[in-house]
Amino acid sequence: MEKKSVESFKLLKKHFDEIIALTEEEFEYAASYFRPKKLKKHQFLVQEGQQSVTEHFVASGLVKAYYTTVEGKEHILQFAMENWWVTDYHAFYHKAIASTNIDCIEDCELLYISQEDKDHICHEIHKLEYFFRVKSNNGYVALQRRILSLLNQDAKGRYEEFIKLYPKLVQRIPKTILASYLGVSRETLSRLGR
Amino acid sequence: MEKKSVESFKLLKKHFDEIIALTEEEFEYAASYFRPKKLKKHQFLVQEGQQSVTEHFVASGLVKAYYTTVEGKEHILQFAMENWWVTDYHAFYHKAIASTNIDCIEDCELLYISQEDKDHICHEIHKLEYFFRVKSNNGYVALQRRILSLLNQDAKGRYEEFIKLYPKLVQRIPKTILASYLGVSRETLSRLGR
Repeated sequence: MEKKSVESFKLLKKHFDEIIALTEEEFEYAASYFRPKKLKKHQFLVQEGQQSVTEHFVASGLVKAYYTTVEGKEHILQFAMENWWVTDYHAFYHKAIASTNIDCIEDCELLYISQEDKDHICHEIHKLEYFFRVKSNNGYVALQRRILSLLNQDAKGRYEEFIKLYPKLVQRIPKTILASYLGVSRETLSRLGR
Repeated sequence: MEKKSVESFKLLKKHFDEIIALTEEEFEYAASYFRPKKLKKHQFLVQEGQQSVTEHFVASGLVKAYYTTVEGKEHILQFAMENWWVTDYHAFYHKAIASTNIDCIEDCELLYISQEDKDHICHEIHKLEYFFRVKSNNGYVALQRRILSLLNQDAKGRYEEFIKLYPKLVQRIPKTILASYLGVSRETLSRLGR
């Protein structure tokens, strides 16, 4: 295994350690179901129409998950940077064809796992089932917050909330893409000082 | 235990059975951590400012979870009818003070559980940890879909998608409340044929 992917697995271990205490043996077992992948900026993790999608742990870099309308407009569903998980979750959980694209905003190092293997390691190691339940719960709460922001806030409010929640992320995202995530026009975002 | 709550526990059993296979003994153990509650239309399950919130399984009836702005405007975060789970999830998972209200659109019969007890039964019975991970995953996907609907669809599109996804629910929800959920005005919703 090349040096870089060793680093990725170290990060994954640290990431699990934040919530659960796996033994060395348990971690090695779980890690054996993950595969490393390196992608360059603009390359795709998931493409619309793809038959089977895997879930990705981002060890370094930044990606965006987005839906493209028939008119070619992009709506950003999710960003993911270091220590975040990303896939087309509808396709992943329901074994459906991907309806979204996920590509790299920066060069990335990833670890990926199939839905079957994720279920398998969660079944074998109860602590992992707990870990991923907690992650999913946190994700749910973050999405509720985003819905509230879309319903309740104007462009300025959404932008300020995003900066407050993700101060590190905001500097790494091109303006046009951030505007799309916030559901505001690029011009409006510019007026807010970006 | 009165007759009505026996029915509620039967529904809970059936609800678990859709995803996992608990033994009679396991179900009895898990069920012992739930308490029944009956509420009338307009009564509250959770109130803004509440110190500790419980999660509710809806056995019958219909509730809405909403956020109230300083101007008094209500934004609907979630509906929950039979077989759905509902609480202020941010408050529930993070032991925070409730920032939302949840009240009954119809008379309700509920089963509720504390966060500690939910974690406990998930820890004792691995199958329940799996069950709630799956539920949380499904919830996450449903919220992503709603975000996409808010970003991508106009009032008509959002309304039609809601009817398609929740045909039974749409008939039970007052127009003003549905308009608030969809993020459109009551007048716009009326023009769409409600």
